[in-house]
Amino acid sequence: MEDILVKGTYICSMNSIWYGNNFKLGVLGGGQLGRMLIQEAINYDVHVHCMDNDPDAPCSKIANSYTLGKLTDYDDVMNFGKDKDVITVEIEHVNVQALKELEAAGVKVYPQPHILEMIQDKGLQKEFYQNNGIPTAPFALVNSKEEIFDNLELLPVMQKLRKGGYDGKGVQAVKTEADIAHGFDGPCVLESFVDFKKELSVIVARNAKGEIKTFPTVECEFSKELNLVEFLFSPAEISEEVEVRSQELAKEIIEKLDMVGILAIEYFLTQEDELLVNEIAPRPHNSGHHTIEANLTSQFEQHLRAITNTPLGDTAIVQPGVMINVLGDPNYEGPTVYDGLDFVMQQAGAYAHMYGKASTKPNRKMGHITVINPDLEKAKETARVIKSRFKVISE
Amino acid sequence: MEDILVKGTYICSMNSIWYGNNFKLGVLGGGQLGRMLIQEAINYDVHVHCMDNDPDAPCSKIANSYTLGKLTDYDDVMNFGKDKDVITVEIEHVNVQALKELEAAGVKVYPQPHILEMIQDKGLQKEFYQNNGIPTAPFALVNSKEEIFDNLELLPVMQKLRKGGYDGKGVQAVKTEADIAHGFDGPCVLESFVDFKKELSVIVARNAKGEIKTFPTVECEFSKELNLVEFLFSPAEISEEVEVRSQELAKEIIEKLDMVGILAIEYFLTQEDELLVNEIAPRPHNSGHHTIEANLTSQFEQHLRAITNTPLGDTAIVQPGVMINVLGDPNYEGPTVYDGLDFVMQQAGAYAHMYGKASTKPNRKMGHITVINPDLEKAKETARVIKSRFKVISE
Repeated sequence: MEDILVKGTYICSMNSIWYGNNFKLGVLGGGQLGRMLIQEAINYDVHVHCMDNDPDAPCSKIANSYTLGKLTDYDDVMNFGKDKDVITVEIEHVNVQALKELEAAGVKVYPQPHILEMIQDKGLQKEFYQNNGIPTAPFALVNSKEEIFDNLELLPVMQKLRKGGYDGKGVQAVKTEADIAHGFDGPCVLESFVDFKKELSVIVARNAKGEIKTFPTVECEFSKELNLVEFLFSPAEISEEVEVRSQELAKEIIEKLDMVGILAIEYFLTQEDELLVNEIAPRPHNSGHHTIEANLTSQFEQHLRAITNTPLGDTAIVQPGVMINVLGDPNYEGPTVYDGLDFVMQQAGAYAHMYGKASTKPNRKMGHITVINPDLEKAKETARVIKSRFKVISE
Repeated sequence: MEDILVKGTYICSMNSIWYGNNFKLGVLGGGQLGRMLIQEAINYDVHVHCMDNDPDAPCSKIANSYTLGKLTDYDDVMNFGKDKDVITVEIEHVNVQALKELEAAGVKVYPQPHILEMIQDKGLQKEFYQNNGIPTAPFALVNSKEEIFDNLELLPVMQKLRKGGYDGKGVQAVKTEADIAHGFDGPCVLESFVDFKKELSVIVARNAKGEIKTFPTVECEFSKELNLVEFLFSPAEISEEVEVRSQELAKEIIEKLDMVGILAIEYFLTQEDELLVNEIAPRPHNSGHHTIEANLTSQFEQHLRAITNTPLGDTAIVQPGVMINVLGDPNYEGPTVYDGLDFVMQQAGAYAHMYGKASTKPNRKMGHITVINPDLEKAKETARVIKSRFKVISE
């Protein structure tokens, strides 16, 4: 596929990179996060160009141009990036070397390549927390299965591959010495089990002028089997003190990273009300999808504002909300069928977001549904009924 | 340009036309109304195919496929429509003969061609109101300038061309006998001046199952010079009784038309609190743009639901809102520049919708901005400041 030259003129004011003709935003990755970014970019008449290896990825039918290419391939990233004004990512697993060279050649790359490099390695992430006094669970770094035996005092642990893990893959529990036999044999993080009462998330954005804004803290309910967010509740039901602390910590992290763009911070809230950083993701995040309807500015628009160095938007809650992750039903594989969508459409305040994936697979992320209501408990009730009535199946 | 075959499967339930593979929605017109319809269709993974004569029209970069063709040309409409499941319009000036034949061949055409035929002729519109007991201003139909002299008792009147008028064009005041010299010389409606205190609008939707829902009544503030909506306020500041009457009348009209789709009804509210129907438009309408952020369901999504015979959405107000029409500054013509967009972005609850038109012209519709706020008066204040600070100009 070829890039198509697009027209258009964008101006904001001094200090804005929207100034001038033919502003081009490149997004590495063509998945749902890119798709929702494009949906917001349409309102600002910003032209978005995507690259992905899959010709049918969610962005393929709505991007201004769509380039087939491998995100981890140096040449593909270089070729895609060289005529763009700003490059961003919707997935972290991209060729950092190419991005560093593009940055050196004057392309704005947000998040910056050095941050992506750190994020690609869970070991570097943990060291960053440690070196910057950011609270996180105790850990050790090992290079092989054998080295787990040197860290028996940490057990039980979550063993995480330093590189390549994604959405619950590359993560497993090592509870006892006997479990080590089935451990990953390579560079890993061993992380102490955390006895937490809630998992929280804060999304924070920062533009190149240094303006920083956080979204109100939300609460995630995980599926234990899949290690994926099943429901998300906004706002989190936490004390004012924990709310303030989680927000301040988020601002501190994005500042210490000197990052431009949007950053999701997942926390454990321990039984003792301690906040421990679990993971961070320098892009729009599953725990921010509700912001499309439930907050004044969505996380996708906020990311767009951050990377174009325009003013960040107000993040106030419009209505409490619940987000339901929609995964492919475990019993179906094949062409996508949305079963029960009419039921969803009948629920006041329910918003379907189907990602346009032509095929479903067991537990594949196929969409999300947000329910807003002035009363969070009512939104939760509606969400649980929808969860039981709506499925992504196949013919 | 060629249509591109797209993939995807859509199912709802019995009675839903989203059932089956490769559902194709065709939109005649590639303007901003189609663009905002596409923005909603993305969430339902519905593929939208547009036809327009302008290769750079607002839909051109985001439609699933884009066909160049003339909307009033029989062959172009036939060729575009024949492989679609549902055809809709985002402008009324389309070839009705082709649509009638497509309908006879089994394509669902919503709004139905006989309604478009009536809408294309303001004389037939007025006769429809008269024949169905729908209150409207007194009028006469004339075929030439000469015949105005036969209707002197109606003066002062608005003289409207029966066909081809649009956005304030083809409409002029004939106040005195002397003005007749400058009158249009052709088939026209002469409509008595109405002494109104407010202009109101109700948007009503109906699906093929006969389900009907209205949006709360809104109030339009027109620019006197341009005969275009300048500001829109939601909700309208009217008595409960007028609210109920305007809603009921809207339902009555769409039922009497037996129409499927969305219908905008513009009313005059007279000094005596009488409601007179001014005009109707069987498509998403300028007086419903605020619904994107200010109501639970937007008019564009509601239209999509109506024409796909899926359940209509709840139309409740989320927050009061003001919509500002953004017209090209009268002093500029050329490549589009959004001047002051950063100021708009700094206002909490303000939403920019730039339509992606590459060139601006004096008073061309270039976008709209919606401001929501729990307090309508505050939204009005913000809207008036934005109006004074944001302009669409050229380089």
